[in-house]
Amino acid sequence: MHRTRFYTLSASCPDRVGIVARVSGFIAGHGGWILETALHAEPARADGAAEGGEAVGRYFMRIEIRADSLPFHLAEFRERFRPLADELEMEWKITDSAVKKRVVLLVSKQEHCLYDLLARWQSKELDIEIPCVISNHDALRGFVEWHGIPFHHVPVGADNKAAAYAEVQRIFEEVRGDTMVLARYMQVLSPALCAAYPGRILNIHHSFLPSFVGAKPYHQAWAKGVKLIGATCHYVTAELDQGPIIEQDVIRIDHSDAVEDMVRYGKDIEKTVLARGLRYHLEDRVLVHGNKTIVFR
Amino acid sequence: MHRTRFYTLSASCPDRVGIVARVSGFIAGHGGWILETALHAEPARADGAAEGGEAVGRYFMRIEIRADSLPFHLAEFRERFRPLADELEMEWKITDSAVKKRVVLLVSKQEHCLYDLLARWQSKELDIEIPCVISNHDALRGFVEWHGIPFHHVPVGADNKAAAYAEVQRIFEEVRGDTMVLARYMQVLSPALCAAYPGRILNIHHSFLPSFVGAKPYHQAWAKGVKLIGATCHYVTAELDQGPIIEQDVIRIDHSDAVEDMVRYGKDIEKTVLARGLRYHLEDRVLVHGNKTIVFR
Amino acid sequence: MHRTRFYTLSASCPDRVGIVARVSGFIAGHGGWILETALHAEPARADGAAEGGEAVGRYFMRIEIRADSLPFHLAEFRERFRPLADELEMEWKITDSAVKKRVVLLVSKQEHCLYDLLARWQSKELDIEIPCVISNHDALRGFVEWHGIPFHHVPVGADNKAAAYAEVQRIFEEVRGDTMVLARYMQVLSPALCAAYPGRILNIHHSFLPSFVGAKPYHQAWAKGVKLIGATCHYVTAELDQGPIIEQDVIRIDHSDAVEDMVRYGKDIEKTVLARGLRYHLEDRVLVHGNKTIVFR
Amino acid sequence: MHRTRFYTLSASCPDRVGIVARVSGFIAGHGGWILETALHAEPARADGAAEGGEAVGRYFMRIEIRADSLPFHLAEFRERFRPLADELEMEWKITDSAVKKRVVLLVSKQEHCLYDLLARWQSKELDIEIPCVISNHDALRGFVEWHGIPFHHVPVGADNKAAAYAEVQRIFEEVRGDTMVLARYMQVLSPALCAAYPGRILNIHHSFLPSFVGAKPYHQAWAKGVKLIGATCHYVTAELDQGPIIEQDVIRIDHSDAVEDMVRYGKDIEKTVLARGLRYHLEDRVLVHGNKTIVFR
Repeated sequence: MHRTRFYTLSASCPDRVGIVARVSGFIAGHGGWILETALHAEPARADGAAEGGEAVGRYFMRIEIRADSLPFHLAEFRERFRPLADELEMEWKITDSAVKKRVVLLVSKQEHCLYDLLARWQSKELDIEIPCVISNHDALRGFVEWHGIPFHHVPVGADNKAAAYAEVQRIFEEVRGDTMVLARYMQVLSPALCAAYPGRILNIHHSFLPSFVGAKPYHQAWAKGVKLIGATCHYVTAELDQGPIIEQDVIRIDHSDAVEDMVRYGKDIEKTVLARGLRYHLEDRVLVHGNKTIVFR
Repeated sequence: MHRTRFYTLSASCPDRVGIVARVSGFIAGHGGWILETALHAEPARADGAAEGGEAVGRYFMRIEIRADSLPFHLAEFRERFRPLADELEMEWKITDSAVKKRVVLLVSKQEHCLYDLLARWQSKELDIEIPCVISNHDALRGFVEWHGIPFHHVPVGADNKAAAYAEVQRIFEEVRGDTMVLARYMQVLSPALCAAYPGRILNIHHSFLPSFVGAKPYHQAWAKGVKLIGATCHYVTAELDQGPIIEQDVIRIDHSDAVEDMVRYGKDIEKTVLARGLRYHLEDRVLVHGNKTIVFR
Repeated sequence: MHRTRFYTLSASCPDRVGIVARVSGFIAGHGGWILETALHAEPARADGAAEGGEAVGRYFMRIEIRADSLPFHLAEFRERFRPLADELEMEWKITDSAVKKRVVLLVSKQEHCLYDLLARWQSKELDIEIPCVISNHDALRGFVEWHGIPFHHVPVGADNKAAAYAEVQRIFEEVRGDTMVLARYMQVLSPALCAAYPGRILNIHHSFLPSFVGAKPYHQAWAKGVKLIGATCHYVTAELDQGPIIEQDVIRIDHSDAVEDMVRYGKDIEKTVLARGLRYHLEDRVLVHGNKTIVFR
Repeated sequence: MHRTRFYTLSASCPDRVGIVARVSGFIAGHGGWILETALHAEPARADGAAEGGEAVGRYFMRIEIRADSLPFHLAEFRERFRPLADELEMEWKITDSAVKKRVVLLVSKQEHCLYDLLARWQSKELDIEIPCVISNHDALRGFVEWHGIPFHHVPVGADNKAAAYAEVQRIFEEVRGDTMVLARYMQVLSPALCAAYPGRILNIHHSFLPSFVGAKPYHQAWAKGVKLIGATCHYVTAELDQGPIIEQDVIRIDHSDAVEDMVRYGKDIEKTVLARGLRYHLEDRVLVHGNKTIVFR
């Protein structure tokens, strides 16, 4: 994180000779000062090498450019860059560090992730807008509102799911949300909602996926007798706990830990993994590639 | 942590044959149901073995007993147990899980440890009383008071240190505090205050001690080029950052992390390490042995 | 690990009042000097507390006693201890640190675990006998024989499995093996062989179980896009990769790591996890409880 | 590590606009196919941002280029690239994956690092030449020679240090060594030897530096009561244990671990950290910057 304003260009395209030269040449040609660059060539094959001439890999990049080093603003950057991007068959975007992302939090009754995220927001470690918090319970209203953040109670029952998620989507649109974060929301979103925001909804699952999908993962871990438990931050897709993984971590347990001890240890991993994954996402460090992610830490 | 009420006996004494038999025999003789036992024999020598007959090691123990399995309460337990404890030359105490410890938090302007501890307190993960928070700044008053916890602003300047720490001590006594927690308090306590509460004041230091004692440890770590940074929870003694270590952890960094990135990563370690160390302390899992600790996780 | 000779009593029995008192009383009554004690009460319920009177948990213990502190040897210890053990309905054994365990290694063509274990054996970190190494390939014969250890080449093909594993068992019996270690043996043992030595055959699986059972776990991990990979040391049962887990660990990877990088990183985890799990097993620190283990580190 | 032959360009120069564009433009201009690129801008100030116009940071890069994509070999690459490198005031080198590095190992009596490195060499995980092993003891001769590697016994006593290190240097020159690895050599090299090969001698120190410099670090760690122990791979300089750190790692211990347990745990960290650090070095992933390193994992 730099104090100076910067633009972040993130992009991917079919791999070929000269991509870096073309893109960095474009930037340098306008006097652009690069603060940070990360590049990755994903080979066409799983074995780590693009050996055959016909194999086409994919190239990923993330470049931070000092805003004051360029002679124009983003709109003009986009216009000037587009021909090159088109030629390279690029999927790309460029964002401005001065424009705060708008992050809507969805919570249930558990407070650990919410406290953690609001502490980071208070201290400006997370330099975002939180236009509102949505919950299926009213328990955390006071805490949220004390921070000056609007709180919406949208109950979710067995028979109103479609209506409830339509309301969540309406609120998200109304506040012009960029990202939705399920901070231990404990509800399975509707397929429609998942489909509406691909790569924009983050969840924290309290297991080291792909182990222990679904409900009560700590009970599953206890029953299996694993020696480490974990948490996974991933993008939400229609398939439960199967979206692209952004970040994971684990913590050691042993036979003396009951399920409730695992729950307690797990919370520390959950909030840290969610915060890291969210930061990577907000800083445009995460590029989705099929069901996997490139994360330019 | 058990839902049933229990007593925790923690003790140490010179090592000899039959300590466990005598103590567990005493408990069993009264029908005491042991929930958890941890034992440790610290040899007289550093090499891990008490080889010579003349070497006297020290024996440490922590035993949880179901309260309802004993036919008497703690006062009588203490009276009945004392002769055996005296015979074994034991330092010991026994506490009641139904009596909440009273923990006074000292903070400065940084909020991450405070948010973290109050989240744990709100969710009853930390089942304690927080009679008040003391700070040398007024910044976090609103947050603390929203939780219904009294907040005391005790400024500390270059020329009023003695008076300020006398006031801290007066408040701590007034609220009958058991434990004082420096949750990124960023001030060096007076020797008098340190001496008044040995083994009862916990600090979180933002380095992996003994590296990087004192001010600006992340700057020191950056200058040295270490590949991991850490945090240390320790008891406060008169000597700065030298008290017995309770808990430590580290996180990986690399050359791309500036000091401010280290500060950010470090916060996650600081709050987790402090919370773990505090929990161990509150559950009487920490026994001090010279300048070291036995921690019965 | 102590330099002085000691006996290790490991046992489990239904939980009740007074177990520790009875057992430690027996030991103290004969002047036994306890070097190390570890105890664990496994509650009858998954939620960590044996709350109801009818719930019967299970109690586990491991006690190291200095051999020269007892007035008799193991045979007499066993005879004298038996009545108490029977009364407590105990499953138990006691072993002598002076009697080296006999460990038979099964390997295939990969050398990393074999080199690692032989280095530990050479330095006496693993104070065991290795009566022989068995392999389905002849590749590592020279290395093994240089160490003065007999090497048996027992090829395993699609049509001779039963005969091959009968031969493995014959050799294991002939050399009076205590423990069999599959050090990246890469073959699935026959059900008969698994059944013959419950709790005596250790395997290292190159994934963080229960994720990625079976063949090519690193390819599975790569396809899933996990951010950490792991290894698991477990007892072998007839069901592939499903036996009680003894030890696990993980290492961080990222998008830039191809499958072959994972294989390389994984080797470091595999050998460390196998060595730790084997040490726990050899020191009688592992007690099996259903499909889980108690590991008294 | 790619199966195809590639060149690795590693370089650093004063930061300025257009470095990436110029270098990647040069490569693309000759049809060079970039397999992997890593870049880092080290700001002039410790606070992570080059804010003032007068501040001059330093730029680091490492680029892998497929050998068969370039129309010339390394000699011609060097000649053609030199004008650009000179203009950018670059320190640089380019190496060929087809030319194996020649690594001389220095050992003492402990075998764990030697076994570990030779296992990696046997399996071609470390694709290097080991022209010889040098030791101040004769203990490991047989093991080394069994692998077909010459072994030199160069005793080091209190009164022959200068002569001994002159002999080590003579052998290293004779076998045309690229890199010298102190694999638990346990001797302090002479200042002359350190000065002769800056950035070419790697050591593994058995502590988490800067804690516990010098002799018996595990004893120091035990006395201090730390909760984690570590190991550090660093370049050797004339000042003991103060050279640029390449890689570090730690492992958790507790009060029950005696010094000899720490030694045992520590070995696993030592060999892994040394192997990782050596791999980074051999793949030209380590760029020294003052007393610190840039490590392009």
